[in-house]
Amino acid sequence: MTSLALIEAAAARLKGHARRTPLLSSPFLDEIAGRRLLVKAECLQHTGSFKFRGGWAAVSALAPELRQRGVVAFSSGNHAQGVAMAAQAHGAPAVIVMPADAPRLKIDNTRALGAEVILYDRAGGEDRDAVTAPLVAERGLTLIKPFDDPQVIAGQGTTGLEIAEQAASLGVSQADVLVCCGGGGLTSGVALALEGHAPGLRVRPAEPQGFDDVVRSLKSGKVETNAAPSGSVCDAILTPSPGALTWPLLSRLCGPGITITDDEALRAMALAFQRLKIVVEPGGAAALAAALFHPEDIEGDAVIAVATGGNVDSDIFAAAIGRFL
Amino acid sequence: MTSLALIEAAAARLKGHARRTPLLSSPFLDEIAGRRLLVKAECLQHTGSFKFRGGWAAVSALAPELRQRGVVAFSSGNHAQGVAMAAQAHGAPAVIVMPADAPRLKIDNTRALGAEVILYDRAGGEDRDAVTAPLVAERGLTLIKPFDDPQVIAGQGTTGLEIAEQAASLGVSQADVLVCCGGGGLTSGVALALEGHAPGLRVRPAEPQGFDDVVRSLKSGKVETNAAPSGSVCDAILTPSPGALTWPLLSRLCGPGITITDDEALRAMALAFQRLKIVVEPGGAAALAAALFHPEDIEGDAVIAVATGGNVDSDIFAAAIGRFL
Repeated sequence: MTSLALIEAAAARLKGHARRTPLLSSPFLDEIAGRRLLVKAECLQHTGSFKFRGGWAAVSALAPELRQRGVVAFSSGNHAQGVAMAAQAHGAPAVIVMPADAPRLKIDNTRALGAEVILYDRAGGEDRDAVTAPLVAERGLTLIKPFDDPQVIAGQGTTGLEIAEQAASLGVSQADVLVCCGGGGLTSGVALALEGHAPGLRVRPAEPQGFDDVVRSLKSGKVETNAAPSGSVCDAILTPSPGALTWPLLSRLCGPGITITDDEALRAMALAFQRLKIVVEPGGAAALAAALFHPEDIEGDAVIAVATGGNVDSDIFAAAIGRFL
Repeated sequence: MTSLALIEAAAARLKGHARRTPLLSSPFLDEIAGRRLLVKAECLQHTGSFKFRGGWAAVSALAPELRQRGVVAFSSGNHAQGVAMAAQAHGAPAVIVMPADAPRLKIDNTRALGAEVILYDRAGGEDRDAVTAPLVAERGLTLIKPFDDPQVIAGQGTTGLEIAEQAASLGVSQADVLVCCGGGGLTSGVALALEGHAPGLRVRPAEPQGFDDVVRSLKSGKVETNAAPSGSVCDAILTPSPGALTWPLLSRLCGPGITITDDEALRAMALAFQRLKIVVEPGGAAALAAALFHPEDIEGDAVIAVATGGNVDSDIFAAAIGRFL
């Protein structure tokens, strides 16, 4: 089970390897949000998303003989790249099982980071677990799950340790912290870190319409599931339901979630380009979209949004900045 | 005259106000550059460029009675925004004289930061000094020059103090440091900072073809001038010749400059989008272009490039990523 101590131990292993990403702001975004808005730019993390933290935490926690045998992960892309780069740096073989409809850039990057990529047909209903299981059984690989893994949650939680310090240095001790939420690994890890280090900062998940399983779960008090497996531009955070390990943390620590539309995510992407000079992918812009376009759902005179990733194809990005700027 | 002590004093005044921008990297860019490539992301500075540093250094150095009367600056855009935001934070009125053909975003931003903007016809040959002089004489405003000002050079030089520390923490003590160069304020300030704090790091200017006055001046040993006043997509760094204050520093401290093409700048912009998740404007990508596409002109197994700004119109950016990715 992930604890604050596990997060702090992960932070020690990540030191000098993960980037301490900046907390950015712009007076133009403050004006739209109606309050002070701070953006944790995890798109500037190695491999372009926070997932590098969890990948590094998990691979570095393995016993040497397991690490040598290798790791396997399934992922729509960002977890894939995070695990691949972490494994490569540790000299561990990595096999990544990816949906064939994941963005091309993410598949290419994962291969270029030295991983063996196996594609499966997500849209056609093929089961990724059925693809992954034999790799574990026959090749002795260790499965690194995208969110339901104590070390992965601990690695993502190191983002929260940084937010606590950076917000304090800017004089912000009371604020909602909006986190783009898929299975809840980052959201629960950050919530656990902030519970210990900045109790005035409250985590709230942000999810796209139709894929707001965590938002609805928090509302009903029990695990809810999305109707469809895919169909939002926010491809990085389309997870059917909160995880077995993340849900107890989410339900204990999070404030109410916020649901955003695909267009709001794309508009937030465009504004992050224009005002913060960062590249954010649609799923990575969900929290920023919530901060900018749902100000009435947020309390307090400051808000923090985590921009979780920046791995977006150039045509989607160009279309968004052309349409919204 | 700017000295290391003046840069260190500026750093003390900027502390808590300017951002310490990250030094980014990507294995994909290392491969293109043929060596380890570190990118100082000054596009993530307040107002989207390093110019905020010089603006803050100059405004904060003014005596209170001068500050109260206000400041004036002429600029194609980035210096304008840097001075405007610094003046606003100090409660000082700011008048900015801008060429009418500057990117729309830069003009709009400067106004939104509280400055009075006066446009002049650069392409038609109108003289900006003739527009600026009466503002100084009649309204008692203090002129903050874009580069030929000891405090502005000192402010830009604080970038060099950070590069020295950040490179050392990554184990890099010997490298060329490529800097996008207009009038040479940043280039000379960084060179002066590195002379004192990291003597193994050597500054080299990068400029666009047809506007490589500093590259040619360093080669001939005397001040050279560009034939045309405008005509490159790298609008931020089109200055006719090195400055009276910057030239002695540049000629004493810099290694040979590197000339890049407009297309190389645009391609570097596209790669910075894809691999670093940062938004860089064409003129701000000149140094990165030199590192990526002129590896044969660079020595050593590491190179540092300063990405100086990110204020680019969305149509130019969309066209570049569409064309080169």
